[in-house]
Amino acid sequence: MLAYRLIERKRDGEQIAPPEWRAMVAGYVAGEIPDYQMAALLMAAYLQGLDRDETRALTSAMLMSGTTLEGGTTLGPRIGKHSTGGVGDKVSLVLAPLVASLGVAAPMIVGRTLAHTGGTLDKLEAIPGFRTSLPVVEAREQLDRVGCVLMGQTSEIAPADLKLYSLRDATATVESIPLIAASIMSKKLAEGLSALVLDVKRGSGALLPDLERGLELAKTMIALGTDHGCPVVALLTAMDRPLGRACGNALETEEAIHALRGEGPPDLMAVTYALGAEMLLLAGVASTRDDARRRMEVAIGSGYAAEKMREVIEAQGGNPNVVDDPSILPQADACELFAAPVRGFVATVEPRAIGRGVVALGGGRSRIEDRVDPSVGFVVSAKPGDWVEAGEPLATVFARDADGIEAGRTALRAAVQIADEADHPLPLVSHRVTALGVEPFGYAS
Amino acid sequence: MLAYRLIERKRDGEQIAPPEWRAMVAGYVAGEIPDYQMAALLMAAYLQGLDRDETRALTSAMLMSGTTLEGGTTLGPRIGKHSTGGVGDKVSLVLAPLVASLGVAAPMIVGRTLAHTGGTLDKLEAIPGFRTSLPVVEAREQLDRVGCVLMGQTSEIAPADLKLYSLRDATATVESIPLIAASIMSKKLAEGLSALVLDVKRGSGALLPDLERGLELAKTMIALGTDHGCPVVALLTAMDRPLGRACGNALETEEAIHALRGEGPPDLMAVTYALGAEMLLLAGVASTRDDARRRMEVAIGSGYAAEKMREVIEAQGGNPNVVDDPSILPQADACELFAAPVRGFVATVEPRAIGRGVVALGGGRSRIEDRVDPSVGFVVSAKPGDWVEAGEPLATVFARDADGIEAGRTALRAAVQIADEADHPLPLVSHRVTALGVEPFGYAS
Repeated sequence: MLAYRLIERKRDGEQIAPPEWRAMVAGYVAGEIPDYQMAALLMAAYLQGLDRDETRALTSAMLMSGTTLEGGTTLGPRIGKHSTGGVGDKVSLVLAPLVASLGVAAPMIVGRTLAHTGGTLDKLEAIPGFRTSLPVVEAREQLDRVGCVLMGQTSEIAPADLKLYSLRDATATVESIPLIAASIMSKKLAEGLSALVLDVKRGSGALLPDLERGLELAKTMIALGTDHGCPVVALLTAMDRPLGRACGNALETEEAIHALRGEGPPDLMAVTYALGAEMLLLAGVASTRDDARRRMEVAIGSGYAAEKMREVIEAQGGNPNVVDDPSILPQADACELFAAPVRGFVATVEPRAIGRGVVALGGGRSRIEDRVDPSVGFVVSAKPGDWVEAGEPLATVFARDADGIEAGRTALRAAVQIADEADHPLPLVSHRVTALGVEPFGYAS
Repeated sequence: MLAYRLIERKRDGEQIAPPEWRAMVAGYVAGEIPDYQMAALLMAAYLQGLDRDETRALTSAMLMSGTTLEGGTTLGPRIGKHSTGGVGDKVSLVLAPLVASLGVAAPMIVGRTLAHTGGTLDKLEAIPGFRTSLPVVEAREQLDRVGCVLMGQTSEIAPADLKLYSLRDATATVESIPLIAASIMSKKLAEGLSALVLDVKRGSGALLPDLERGLELAKTMIALGTDHGCPVVALLTAMDRPLGRACGNALETEEAIHALRGEGPPDLMAVTYALGAEMLLLAGVASTRDDARRRMEVAIGSGYAAEKMREVIEAQGGNPNVVDDPSILPQADACELFAAPVRGFVATVEPRAIGRGVVALGGGRSRIEDRVDPSVGFVVSAKPGDWVEAGEPLATVFARDADGIEAGRTALRAAVQIADEADHPLPLVSHRVTALGVEPFGYAS
């Protein structure tokens, strides 16, 4: 009867009390509450919303359904980082070893590729031998020893979220701000963090394209962090074009390695440094953003950051030589340049079209059980605002065969528009959000 | 993918096209679409609504999921009757044999007791031996031969509705006008009717207490009838107090038998004659409401109506002697009079409190699988507006034992309020609704 009453009340726009959320989530994980009742509750929550107390109670219930990475012997700060997801976003692969090389423990529970957005887990699995499914005891030990762990969510961590996420994915109840925030934060809080930095994407390729909705998500997650004693800072970053050049699993891992060796594309480095500075400031390791940036440049220039990546890969069973020789990564059988059809300004490089192109090439998922081909994808060198001549190469398609090349070409034709005038792309980092409010980014950089 | 897209669109308030509803319902009945996706769609439909085309498509899909009572050899009119349910509502038990005795075929697929409202099926099953679960071929044959059949919904008739109703009952998606209307009409249209008369209850004991919502339900069902070539007339009737005196399965069957023998309480007879007149008019058997009423009075006075009831009971395996000797019905072990605690006007006889009292006595259901004790219940002789002296008997409790008597007394104390002034109860029949619109009842009676 409990489930029925709660569905009824949420349907009518009423609040569900924290102990009721706990009982509902516990009953669901225990199999006492069936999927169909939870599906009805999720749809009612999607349409009627959850208030701050409800979102906190749901998050806590999901967090408490499993164990956490807390309890190691590391005494230093542990800073988390999360991105709401985009195309070409390989920042976590760079940031985790980078801040770890500067003494900040970086546990990262990362997700899979779904729909048009890439998932860090699939990028990591492009590295031969790399294990992403770690027992919690092993993850804790690695975090103490190496200062960094990059792993997937297992049934030990927030199992309620795992079960709820599959159900939401099947019942069109994903794009709800409180449900998104609760899902992300239940996993991030399971990392046992001192503080958390969020990269909230905005623009056409983002989960929530709208600035207002992005800010609302940021504020919801910040409130959840505050309520759980974990300070959160969010940056709003651009996802109206891919980040960096590589889009596709192995290609992105390769670009992340280049970035750790000081050879990353400027937009990727700018976002990485902006987020990394917040992490170092929250960790108390840097005193100003400039100081933080210098430390990160030194970590990269000295090779410490790349060395930390090697350590992480080795600890998780991967081939660490990939850091020196990225050609160890899976290579596509076919590749072809894509040239500008006319001269003009690059007006758009539409990230959803690129992301869907990666799926079409076999490098993404339509369903959670689909297998991913790590080798395929795009390297898109054109950026909005660039002037290009007809015939000038804008991108390269990496595919399994000639059909793939054709699919890639079709995707690029849809994604890249050339026009007489340059459009204004979104600023790479536009807003900074904390528990105190929203401010334009860069006021004190 | 189909189910997901349809959930998403209904969630966003968009329309689902008729062929999509058909595919969804067919896939659900076939087990290809899981309960949790249907539950999410139902909640989205509850909160976002369905338009006329959608409601029609859903109704048709449910109707077509099974077989119908059509196809017999009867050439005369077949008129259905349905009530949205209330406390003490035994009108179907009187009307079906009554109109059948006047040459109008009356097929009635009736429902079970649930929550505070009584179900005709359970009242019928109080008759020793009476079978309510009939194969469609047998029901068709009986309808041809006897002119009346009183049966429950089986898996042959609108199986999609059976499956959807259980799911709605578990997911708090029952009280949605389009879903209620589609569920009722899919069963009524399966009766193969020439026309249908609806009794839409209003007042505190009704499924939809509000007049406006009741009218909306009536209009929705009339539109569904029109769209399926079945004329529908609805009367709005009072459910702010029980109808008649008996509340409880065998007690109501007994009162219905009394009514068929000309000994029914006046309010029950008024509602029965009002609905019966609409049935006879739609059947072309009567030319005016007065004419219809005279025919019904003759059928009762002559004993033809009671004789028809005897035939129906015999055809369905029950003991027909019950019509002459209702003491054959299950009798409660304990009974006690309930007296007025003070003198004054009867202000309310709250039907929900009475209905819940029947459940507390063991005569109703909290869950669909509960067994019902047919013998228990109340006979409430007090009506709102009556003047009563302190100590005057207002009702009788029929129970299994002393605990039941106490539970019954508690229910009556909550239900019956005595005050210094008489309240105005709702008119027994207030509105008549047809495809042409709403009119006050009685303009041409």
